[in-house]
Amino acid sequence: MKKILIVGGVAGGATAAARLRRLSEEDEIILFERDEYISFANCGLPYYIGDVIKDRKKLLVQTVDGMSKRFNLDIRNFSEVVAIDPVAKTVEVKNHQTGKTYNESYDKLILSPGAKPIAPPIPGLSEAKNILTLRNIPDTDKIKAVVDSGKVRRAVVIGGGFIGVEMAENLQELGANVTLVEKMNQVLKPLDFEMAQLVHQEINANCVNLILGDGVDHFQKQGSEVVLESGRVLEADLVILAIGVVPDNMLAKQANLKCGLRGHIVTTQNYEVLSGVDESVYSDIFAIGDAIEVKDFVTKDQTAIPLAWPANRQGRVVADYINGKTIKNFGIQGTAVAKVFNKTIASTGNNAVQLDMKKIDYQIVMAHRANHAGYYPHATNIALKLLYDPKTLSILGAQAVGQEGTEKRIDVIASAMKMGATVLDLQDFELCYAPPFSSAKDPANILGYIAENIEDGVYKTVEWHEIDAIVEKGGFLLDVRSPVEVSAGAIKGSVNIELDSLRDRIAEIPISKDTPIYVTCQVGQRAYLAIRILKGNGFTNIYNLSGGYSTYRTAHY
Amino acid sequence: MKKILIVGGVAGGATAAARLRRLSEEDEIILFERDEYISFANCGLPYYIGDVIKDRKKLLVQTVDGMSKRFNLDIRNFSEVVAIDPVAKTVEVKNHQTGKTYNESYDKLILSPGAKPIAPPIPGLSEAKNILTLRNIPDTDKIKAVVDSGKVRRAVVIGGGFIGVEMAENLQELGANVTLVEKMNQVLKPLDFEMAQLVHQEINANCVNLILGDGVDHFQKQGSEVVLESGRVLEADLVILAIGVVPDNMLAKQANLKCGLRGHIVTTQNYEVLSGVDESVYSDIFAIGDAIEVKDFVTKDQTAIPLAWPANRQGRVVADYINGKTIKNFGIQGTAVAKVFNKTIASTGNNAVQLDMKKIDYQIVMAHRANHAGYYPHATNIALKLLYDPKTLSILGAQAVGQEGTEKRIDVIASAMKMGATVLDLQDFELCYAPPFSSAKDPANILGYIAENIEDGVYKTVEWHEIDAIVEKGGFLLDVRSPVEVSAGAIKGSVNIELDSLRDRIAEIPISKDTPIYVTCQVGQRAYLAIRILKGNGFTNIYNLSGGYSTYRTAHY
Ligand SMILES: Cc1cc2nc3c(=O)[nH]c(=O)nc-3n(C[C@H](O)[C@H](O)[C@H](O)COP(=O)(O)OP(=O)(O)OC[C@H]3O[C@@H](n4cnc5c(N)ncnc54)[C@H](O)[C@@H]3O)c2cc1C
Ligand SMILES: Cc1cc2nc3c(=O)[nH]c(=O)nc-3n(C[C@H](O)[C@H](O)[C@H](O)COP(=O)(O)OP(=O)(O)OC[C@H]3O[C@@H](n4cnc5c(N)ncnc54)[C@H](O)[C@@H]3O)c2cc1C
Ligand SMILES: CC(C)(COP(=O)(O)OP(=O)(O)OC[C@H]1O[C@@H](n2cnc3c(N)ncnc32)[C@H](O)[C@@H]1OP(=O)(O)O)[C@@H](O)C(=O)NCCC(=O)NCCS
Ligand SMILES: CC(C)(COP(=O)(O)OP(=O)(O)OC[C@H]1O[C@@H](n2cnc3c(N)ncnc32)[C@H](O)[C@@H]1OP(=O)(O)O)[C@@H](O)C(=O)NCCC(=O)NCCS
Repeated sequence: MKKILIVGGVAGGATAAARLRRLSEEDEIILFERDEYISFANCGLPYYIGDVIKDRKKLLVQTVDGMSKRFNLDIRNFSEVVAIDPVAKTVEVKNHQTGKTYNESYDKLILSPGAKPIAPPIPGLSEAKNILTLRNIPDTDKIKAVVDSGKVRRAVVIGGGFIGVEMAENLQELGANVTLVEKMNQVLKPLDFEMAQLVHQEINANCVNLILGDGVDHFQKQGSEVVLESGRVLEADLVILAIGVVPDNMLAKQANLKCGLRGHIVTTQNYEVLSGVDESVYSDIFAIGDAIEVKDFVTKDQTAIPLAWPANRQGRVVADYINGKTIKNFGIQGTAVAKVFNKTIASTGNNAVQLDMKKIDYQIVMAHRANHAGYYPHATNIALKLLYDPKTLSILGAQAVGQEGTEKRIDVIASAMKMGATVLDLQDFELCYAPPFSSAKDPANILGYIAENIEDGVYKTVEWHEIDAIVEKGGFLLDVRSPVEVSAGAIKGSVNIELDSLRDRIAEIPISKDTPIYVTCQVGQRAYLAIRILKGNGFTNIYNLSGGYSTYRTAHY
Repeated sequence: MKKILIVGGVAGGATAAARLRRLSEEDEIILFERDEYISFANCGLPYYIGDVIKDRKKLLVQTVDGMSKRFNLDIRNFSEVVAIDPVAKTVEVKNHQTGKTYNESYDKLILSPGAKPIAPPIPGLSEAKNILTLRNIPDTDKIKAVVDSGKVRRAVVIGGGFIGVEMAENLQELGANVTLVEKMNQVLKPLDFEMAQLVHQEINANCVNLILGDGVDHFQKQGSEVVLESGRVLEADLVILAIGVVPDNMLAKQANLKCGLRGHIVTTQNYEVLSGVDESVYSDIFAIGDAIEVKDFVTKDQTAIPLAWPANRQGRVVADYINGKTIKNFGIQGTAVAKVFNKTIASTGNNAVQLDMKKIDYQIVMAHRANHAGYYPHATNIALKLLYDPKTLSILGAQAVGQEGTEKRIDVIASAMKMGATVLDLQDFELCYAPPFSSAKDPANILGYIAENIEDGVYKTVEWHEIDAIVEKGGFLLDVRSPVEVSAGAIKGSVNIELDSLRDRIAEIPISKDTPIYVTCQVGQRAYLAIRILKGNGFTNIYNLSGGYSTYRTAHY
């Protein structure tokens, strides 16, 4: 019989507790949670505030009583673990209801303390009463109370990450006048800029006032005015501060556990923590979830991915390890999805910005494809961007923005990545097809097709942010759309020859066959067909504008 | 320059033509199509009849003119290839408009003639005017004309395959009184019986009169009465005969190409056809699509999969091969999906019936999981059944019936299979999670979890069709649901001890610890938790009823 203590009773902690009990009926398992609630639906909180989830009870996936009974656990809520003595193998626990402190010994200790909202010392923050953050049920109750008071005419959400964007949507749908402020030039960092622009369009189309590239300078009048770095002043009845999370590492710091640059607990492959003094492994203490550093599945760098899938997965495998099973730690891809009004945004792996930062070479594949057969009603477009290693052809990451069926394609790609697929393997994925669900060539297949043509040297790609300079320097940009489409908007300096007359008019192209020629259309597909014709007519140095005019226009939106 | 002829201008043929042109600007490519239309949306036909697709033009993905122009093809519709001379390398073409016949030579010949509806010599069939089949646009126009005449009060659809079920739905939604007749005891053969029962429920719930286990004996009164084998007589203003398809192999037979047992053209790995006389390879003639035999990806047997994905894929790779590229032929999984009223039915690989027939050993994993977080509105159940090889743990097949997000899980599993994943690999698939899309443990992950427990020897599974006999012979079946649930229906002979009181009441179990004990609940999850408790208390021979009472009840529906 082992005595196992768990710190933190939500995603990682509760999952570990459940699996630990399943693996051993006899172990003594004590779960400490600082707050009142365990096992709640963090991810549902914005939707409860937005009245999409009507019943507060639904947020409680498990209750203290229910879970204690079912899994025969000793669950102690209102109980904060304030210190660890790794030598004596004890923790110090503070009961917030009684104020009393006591020690508890352990054979194994699991830390799943999570991450907390960043609250930097912005001037005026401490005096304000209407500035709230969102992590747990008490936070939710506070925000909900303010919202329900009916006094929130104007809300300001600071931070364009997943939580910020979800809060902006939910407050807007409640009827508030919402401003979303993001210091960077885009929301949702897992997306590259041109993909994020599709989200910006959606946010604006839904009447949220989106301010990019401007941060909060200070708050004034008890927070009823948010003053931005630009000097702009926003009036606010409610401010949600959602500029990111940091690991809840107070306990880890106290115990002098090794933490990474940004404060995340460092672990071994088996989730054991290390001494902050001599890096020796504490083989009886484990850490999981938002609080830890993980290995990037793609690049093998250290990173941190504060998402529920990793926390749940790690909760299960750490329980396995403690019970003597061999576990595998593949690292984390960071697969993520969010609903933003009527759009679905999904991604996995690294984006171009991340790869650039890490100086990792990549080839871009971009496609705009319908989510299902175009002739079946309500087909919608999915913008897809995939990055692969031009040497090994392995997939480095993918992003998608669309509606129904968007995250399906990212799930397929994420699965492919986990199995070590190359981008060409996507061609052979035999996916479900009937008109309401996909096309006989699924968008995921098409990504593989496009990559093959690039690898066959049929064309190279040029990106939306490169083409203007190229044309300015005299590069020849051929637009093969119809004149009607061109008249509705085209890239400056482009020359229009419609695809279906290109064979007849090819002599009009005024450059030599080895001079670079840049081709575009609406999304890149007709450009590709044109490229095949050009190639068949002796052109040797051909570029396709990734995503076509559609991506170019969105990026310049 | 090569001269390439293609027979058949739809899924396989048109795709091959397009890719051929892309790979070579100069080849002469002639596409022969017996009918008027090329490149139409076969899969959309039922929905056009059902008025879901309103615009007939939308069915024409490409027109003869449009496609000729774009791809510089010589497209000859109304032109049937009636003979092949593999030695002279010519074909004989009959122009159905002029009635004239001529020869055309080739360097390469691609056959993509497709499959046609089975129309057996049922007595009374030839006299009937209202019995129609559905393959192409002329068929569609005929059915549509009958439907639009307003005289179809009662429609009978014969055959419960994908097309039959889709037609039943579409006719029903048009207001007809529809009877669907299927000779087997279930519709949709890719599903195992208990999964198909979910579809039967859905069909019945939508007021289609579903008759299983009864076939057509004959038609009488010019087809206005359908007499079943049971003697039952169905009145019908319209009869759709959709009992399956056979390869459209008249040309292949004429040319004496090697065909399989059921008449499909046999090909090499590179889609070359063989002589029916001496099995020598005709290395300039290729066959693809519904008309050919393919290798079952899972079992490596020869089979036939008349679906659009394979036809499209083969169209592309055969063009590659003809242009000197090396191609891979992995065989076909048979991934398929259909919408049946509000349900989505998806599958990939082999089902239990197929594996039984092939005497391939398998282990079943069954789960009922919500498509997305239960606390987020409109969560719906997905019934999932996965089969894996108990020796290699490789995935043999999977089936799913549910609503939104159903085919997503099959796509993930199909991709996993293509990459050679074991069932345990599913655990580590890092899939998109936010409340509107999934759960932190995706249903696909859960299948991997369940399999691990089975492989760890925690329990064995017992199936819905086995349990009654077991209980009758004195087997002990423990139902761990709440008494309220049990009172609403339970398996005869089961003993109820609610999960949460099992630890206290375990002594009530009247059997020795090494006697087999069968455990069930609603779907199998609480049974599993109970099994862990039983195991912790010394029971050694434990079974979980796959899919729980839910599957048992549905199977007996
Ligand atoms: C509003 C919101 C929306 C989200 N949406 C999504 C989403 O859509 N998809 C997604 O994948 N992820 C989402 N997440 C993130 C997801 O909830 C987290 O990744 C996940 O909960 C992390 O699990 P964890 O166990 O590491 O930490 P948590 O679930 O945060 O649990 C940590 C617990 O430990 C307790 N604790 C900390 N220190 C101590 C101590 N010393 N003693 C006792 N108890 C302690 C805390 O009180 C907390 O309850 C969202 C998060 C929030 C806040
Ligand atoms: C109503 C219906 C619904 C369907 N729904 C789906 C679905 O949802 N999902 C799915 O995956 N699949 C579906 N299918 C199947 C899919 O359409 C086929 O798998 C696919 O079209 C096969 O492509 P093919 O090129 O082999 O044959 P086809 O697309 O049938 O094309 C063959 C063509 O060859 C022509 N031809 C034959 N012989 C000759 C000759 N000697 N000379 C000249 N021309 C000739 C025929 O006229 C025909 O037009 C559906 C089929 C039908 C009929
Ligand atoms: C509620 C909670 C404690 C449940 O943990 P859990 O029991 O591990 O997870 P689930 O309820 O999904 O059940 C999965 C288990 O049931 C088993 N199972 C599921 N369906 C089954 C079936 N039909 N037959 C047999 N076993 C089944 C799985 O194998 C798995 O058990 P295992 O890990 O021992 O293999 C935990 O998920 C939690 O606290 N969640 C809320 C917090 C959170 O995750 N927040 C972030 C997202 S909002
Ligand atoms: C219409 C039809 C002729 C089109 O064939 P196709 O051109 O091969 O297919 P698509 O239109 O999907 O285009 C795919 C091609 O465009 C390329 N492509 C697509 N998007 C692209 C982009 N953004 N950039 C570059 N290339 C792109 C792909 O790489 C692929 O070319 P490749 O095969 O040379 O690699 C054929 O699909 C057809 O006849 N369909 C109707 C019949 C049918 O399939 N019925 C059954 C289902 S209802």
